[in-house]
Amino acid sequence: MTMFVGVSDMAHWIRTVGPEVIIDQMSHEIEADFKRWRSFDLVPRLASHTPIGVIELMPTSDGTSYAFKYVNGHPSNPARGFQTVTAFGALADADNGYPVLLAEMTLLTAVRTAATSAMVSRLLARPDSRRMALIGAGSQAEFQALGHRAALGINQIAIWDTDPDAARKAERNLLGLGFEVHVADSAHAAVAGSDVVTTCTADKIQATVLYDAWVEPGMHLNAIGGDCPGKTELETVILDRGPVFVEHTPQTRIEGEIQHRDGEFPVIELWRVILNEQHGRETPEQVTIFDSVGFAIEDFSALRYLHASVRANGTYTDIDLVAEPEDPKDLFGMVGAPVPAL
Amino acid sequence: MTMFVGVSDMAHWIRTVGPEVIIDQMSHEIEADFKRWRSFDLVPRLASHTPIGVIELMPTSDGTSYAFKYVNGHPSNPARGFQTVTAFGALADADNGYPVLLAEMTLLTAVRTAATSAMVSRLLARPDSRRMALIGAGSQAEFQALGHRAALGINQIAIWDTDPDAARKAERNLLGLGFEVHVADSAHAAVAGSDVVTTCTADKIQATVLYDAWVEPGMHLNAIGGDCPGKTELETVILDRGPVFVEHTPQTRIEGEIQHRDGEFPVIELWRVILNEQHGRETPEQVTIFDSVGFAIEDFSALRYLHASVRANGTYTDIDLVAEPEDPKDLFGMVGAPVPAL
Repeated sequence: MTMFVGVSDMAHWIRTVGPEVIIDQMSHEIEADFKRWRSFDLVPRLASHTPIGVIELMPTSDGTSYAFKYVNGHPSNPARGFQTVTAFGALADADNGYPVLLAEMTLLTAVRTAATSAMVSRLLARPDSRRMALIGAGSQAEFQALGHRAALGINQIAIWDTDPDAARKAERNLLGLGFEVHVADSAHAAVAGSDVVTTCTADKIQATVLYDAWVEPGMHLNAIGGDCPGKTELETVILDRGPVFVEHTPQTRIEGEIQHRDGEFPVIELWRVILNEQHGRETPEQVTIFDSVGFAIEDFSALRYLHASVRANGTYTDIDLVAEPEDPKDLFGMVGAPVPAL
Repeated sequence: MTMFVGVSDMAHWIRTVGPEVIIDQMSHEIEADFKRWRSFDLVPRLASHTPIGVIELMPTSDGTSYAFKYVNGHPSNPARGFQTVTAFGALADADNGYPVLLAEMTLLTAVRTAATSAMVSRLLARPDSRRMALIGAGSQAEFQALGHRAALGINQIAIWDTDPDAARKAERNLLGLGFEVHVADSAHAAVAGSDVVTTCTADKIQATVLYDAWVEPGMHLNAIGGDCPGKTELETVILDRGPVFVEHTPQTRIEGEIQHRDGEFPVIELWRVILNEQHGRETPEQVTIFDSVGFAIEDFSALRYLHASVRANGTYTDIDLVAEPEDPKDLFGMVGAPVPAL
């Protein structure tokens, strides 16, 4: 049987284990997997475009496990009562090719995105960081706050969103989680005095939600929302403020903030920093920039972490995804008694 | 909710509707989809290789629906008590990107392979065909027999397999299905006097299970088992006996019988025959050859047919694969009550 973690099991698992614990532990799993970057098969994602959306398959394997994620992107969905992005995926045993886990990945992707940000901020932000600005109070906001509290002890969150309802939603949730929350009057006011600035807005355009003039020495910028072609968040000149760190360069050049720069624009891949092959932050005054787009290895890490955790605590159901005829040559025997001819 | 058809539901569905009815109707669905070949997005399959196997994702879309299949191939599996090939897949609505159906596809692939053969034999074999030789009595055998009875009224099956147990298994199943069955003493004896010759053996080598000297005028050859690099079944010179028909030329040149010939070896794509752009069989004496490898559009057709059928007769269960927060911006609200800080 294959383990299945649907939406209700996933929500129950996150509630039960605790989102902050999960994001924290998963961030260390992602770091461990980034550390063995060279052992992964880095396959480009396989996209199928339609006039109003895209469906992508994102596989990767380390030779022992194999994972893929199915994810759609349909910007016009909310107006029709659907989610813009939904995702599901599977983890398989590369040794025999059998799927071992199938899971919803809309919630899991939210968690892994925050876990990746947490891993990167632990690596690049100033260790004495205490305040984070959240530009964009949508579906990623609370996960980011929890990830940064786990990674750096950040307990003060300044929120800005163009939608006051979204800002109030995040404030309510974050107060309940024990944060000191300040809903700012402007993006600039949220950013001022923050140690980490996380941009996680959803507009599918080349927006500017963070201006160069607002950036202060020593800040770590965590740019989440610029994650597909034509979708960016930073005033481009910010990219000259300090070193730009990326997950997988070829993908980020297409999808990230650096899509506005030429193919020679210098970036540092995070796995090289983790392996001490390249520098991370070098001074407390330096501005560091994470141009986050989301990468298949993070989904791989998330599925492996989920698999180990739910196998231990039972938050899954079994589904019969793999046919196992008693006699492998008698597959027909599984479909039972002969039926009359046509 | 997403519909899920697991192994038990799939077996129940095939038993209830009847394998012959399903193969017959599905063969017409595949023909209809081949007829609109140009409306499909023909993405190459995405393979992840390990030292002992391969896992592939095979997607396609017609702009309205999207389908993909996950399939592994691990030749060493049977010796360890696992299936060589297992498969599952999903059908999605391209309009909003939501998965509508997730299904096991080991059984479904067996059915769609037979449905494709049936469609092709209806197109290319002599209409007066009455006898089929089955070289290879493994998991595909009975499905092929049913497909050819539905397509051409073939009721006589001559069986050859190097494994006498497999031959007896197929004989038993086929007698139960009302066929006249002859277990031959040799492959040559099975082929002699047959109108259609189906090769469906499993050896992962360049085998020769059908020799040129055995081929008789007017035969239709249905070469199923030569379906991946390094795996073929026909004595190569047979390919000069008559026109060779393929699903999708670039894939067949890598995986099919024609992998032994250069890239200029002439082939005819089946969809062009269906559209009357190219000839199929031209005389009763001609030998026609289908170099079958299996193609993503066939899985697409199979999933769409399955979806319509089980939606009508209820042979599925619902699974919660898509997160639907009440407030799309409050994804965190789905993971419930705040938890204590670390």
